[in-house]
Amino acid sequence: MAKDLPVSPLAVPLPELPAIGGVRFATAAAGIRYRGRDDVLLASFAPGTTVAGVFTRNKCPGAPVTWCRDILPGGTARGLVVNAGNANVFNGAAGAAAARLSAEAAARTLGCAPEQVFLASTGVIGEPMPAERIVAVMDGLAADLAPERWAQAARAIMTTDTFPKASTRTAKIGGVEVRISGIAKGSGMIAPDMATMLAFIVTDAAVPAATLQALLRRGVGPSFNSITVDSDTSTSDTVLLFATGAAGNPPVEDARDLAAFRRALNAVLHDLALMVVRDGEGARKLIEINVAGAVSARSARRIGLAIANSPLVKTAVAGEDANWGRIVMAVGKSGEPADRDRLAVAVGGVWMARDGRVVEGYDEAPVVAHMRGSDIRIDVDLGLGRGRGRVWTCDLTHGYIDINGSYRS
Amino acid sequence: MAKDLPVSPLAVPLPELPAIGGVRFATAAAGIRYRGRDDVLLASFAPGTTVAGVFTRNKCPGAPVTWCRDILPGGTARGLVVNAGNANVFNGAAGAAAARLSAEAAARTLGCAPEQVFLASTGVIGEPMPAERIVAVMDGLAADLAPERWAQAARAIMTTDTFPKASTRTAKIGGVEVRISGIAKGSGMIAPDMATMLAFIVTDAAVPAATLQALLRRGVGPSFNSITVDSDTSTSDTVLLFATGAAGNPPVEDARDLAAFRRALNAVLHDLALMVVRDGEGARKLIEINVAGAVSARSARRIGLAIANSPLVKTAVAGEDANWGRIVMAVGKSGEPADRDRLAVAVGGVWMARDGRVVEGYDEAPVVAHMRGSDIRIDVDLGLGRGRGRVWTCDLTHGYIDINGSYRS
Repeated sequence: MAKDLPVSPLAVPLPELPAIGGVRFATAAAGIRYRGRDDVLLASFAPGTTVAGVFTRNKCPGAPVTWCRDILPGGTARGLVVNAGNANVFNGAAGAAAARLSAEAAARTLGCAPEQVFLASTGVIGEPMPAERIVAVMDGLAADLAPERWAQAARAIMTTDTFPKASTRTAKIGGVEVRISGIAKGSGMIAPDMATMLAFIVTDAAVPAATLQALLRRGVGPSFNSITVDSDTSTSDTVLLFATGAAGNPPVEDARDLAAFRRALNAVLHDLALMVVRDGEGARKLIEINVAGAVSARSARRIGLAIANSPLVKTAVAGEDANWGRIVMAVGKSGEPADRDRLAVAVGGVWMARDGRVVEGYDEAPVVAHMRGSDIRIDVDLGLGRGRGRVWTCDLTHGYIDINGSYRS
Repeated sequence: MAKDLPVSPLAVPLPELPAIGGVRFATAAAGIRYRGRDDVLLASFAPGTTVAGVFTRNKCPGAPVTWCRDILPGGTARGLVVNAGNANVFNGAAGAAAARLSAEAAARTLGCAPEQVFLASTGVIGEPMPAERIVAVMDGLAADLAPERWAQAARAIMTTDTFPKASTRTAKIGGVEVRISGIAKGSGMIAPDMATMLAFIVTDAAVPAATLQALLRRGVGPSFNSITVDSDTSTSDTVLLFATGAAGNPPVEDARDLAAFRRALNAVLHDLALMVVRDGEGARKLIEINVAGAVSARSARRIGLAIANSPLVKTAVAGEDANWGRIVMAVGKSGEPADRDRLAVAVGGVWMARDGRVVEGYDEAPVVAHMRGSDIRIDVDLGLGRGRGRVWTCDLTHGYIDINGSYRS
């Protein structure tokens, strides 16, 4: 059971989220695992809403992930049902049946096909999913749907998150202003017995499903796929993007028409991804790692993730120790091309090591001051090529052990 | 600086190590970093001693690793110099010069070529190596060489190890008894500002260098290359195997002549590797992970390492929680072929999940009792093929954070 965790010191306030034409929300307390809080979210989308999605690459995905993958080629969405408390993972055929039951119940109240209802579940793995509790609150949810309930929605999908996560931007398509808003949950890849990073983004823009999918797939690369808390990939990670078309923008004829929309979408994805790191289990510092001079962008990203996933780098940051030796170690263990004698490392913008050795007489004072802050920046230059990459993580603290290593009651 | 850490609860006693013909040891306090303890080891080998070695795959290796790789093709060894306190890593050309200085000093006292002197350093990364301190104690070391100083040798190479590590076995080659003894150090991949897992094995058998290298390379697969404490690969990992030939066994003509020798060697490698895990930073439980039913042995090993390196699995074990959902997650994130609906997971020999779901009515009592012990066993059956693998790790506790995340003074 989730404990009352203190709010992350890296938390950011929930922004004001205006209503978006074509989407309404309702939340309810179904008692799936938690008591005394909403744990089910229903979203209703206007007819004609297009949808895009990306999912966990974990080979043991939850039943809702399988459900969404199966219906995604349809390209349209009328509903979304999300629950917190049970991930519906590793439940065999019963898990698939539970997913279908939820989708059918939502489809009945929304007047659509079950294959237009997307699902996401987050919580315990391997416990039977009490879908009947979702079915039981469905009529009440449908009666309560309203466009302004974004903050409620952001809270209903939380598990061990310590703060609700949302972001919003506007852009113009063909002279018409459109809005993009999203909510996310996630606090590491897994909290006590809980799984999952989930994000749901809605826009009132009219964008064809195939275009939407291409934008989302490219957008998650430098955002959700560039963050790590503990290197553990959830069985349920899901990002869904819905476009209701209510803004009435002219049809998109060319990718260039969407340049501003793409930037706004990427900004929302970036905001949400960083909020997940800021709520990383036990996190006290946000770490940005910039890698340059690698042989390729792919190589730079892998080196960045090797640093970001190194327990020794993460504990050093927790200890406010600008331990560049551990950064060198992490670069070397990544398996990517690296030349020890060309490597340079900076912390807080101060280059501590260059050409494979410590910079003589470098001034440690600004580095020490930087390490005491909450936003840590690490730069690595491989000196080999033009590949660049950027990833984010958080420090590894006693809080992580407390949250994940507590004895079962 | 290393703190006085309590001895690991998983420690094993130092065995009695008889002298081995053809090798002598001496240790001294050179004051490289530590005070009031021996920190340099000199080993002297009889003429004709053959040598084999395997080294870290980290792309930023220390100068001693580069030195050893360069001289290994010579196939013979007359000396070994090991120091604790400074890893001589990331010191540029000065690091290479320091390595050569140590080798030359030992070569002078031993009356051999510098290229017959092997080196290993463990300790801080990126600090200039005070090789002159090793040179200063070299004559005293040479005067003090004696065959029975195995225990002293095991202690002189420790950094944040909490107990000295050694193992010994005998075998027969062509009717002649030979002995194999080894020492190791390592406590995770890195201790506070320290690096490295080192192991040195000596036998009085006469074995050609090429044969020795083949035996060592195969032997480290299921031993040193199947353990992990924190997924971080040191820049200095080194395993060296010396064969003095003093036992006077007949020449080896056939690999089958070495079957008993190979088994004894592998037993020593296995012992030493597991001692390193038992001294893993903060470790309170030794975890053995057996993977079966994978598509190949390579795939099984990768799945095993994905489980062994998962912070969430390791914190669950620390919390004595048989959290098989996290094991499923780790299998899925490994990227190796897996079918969620064929997967089976056991803890302590009790199968908790089969065919992709929890085993109904399984008896949790023996699993709970098993988790309270110090030796934890996890079994995973993929149900896909005949690939098997076994790896070892330790749990992830507050002790790890204490050791690696302490504020620098």
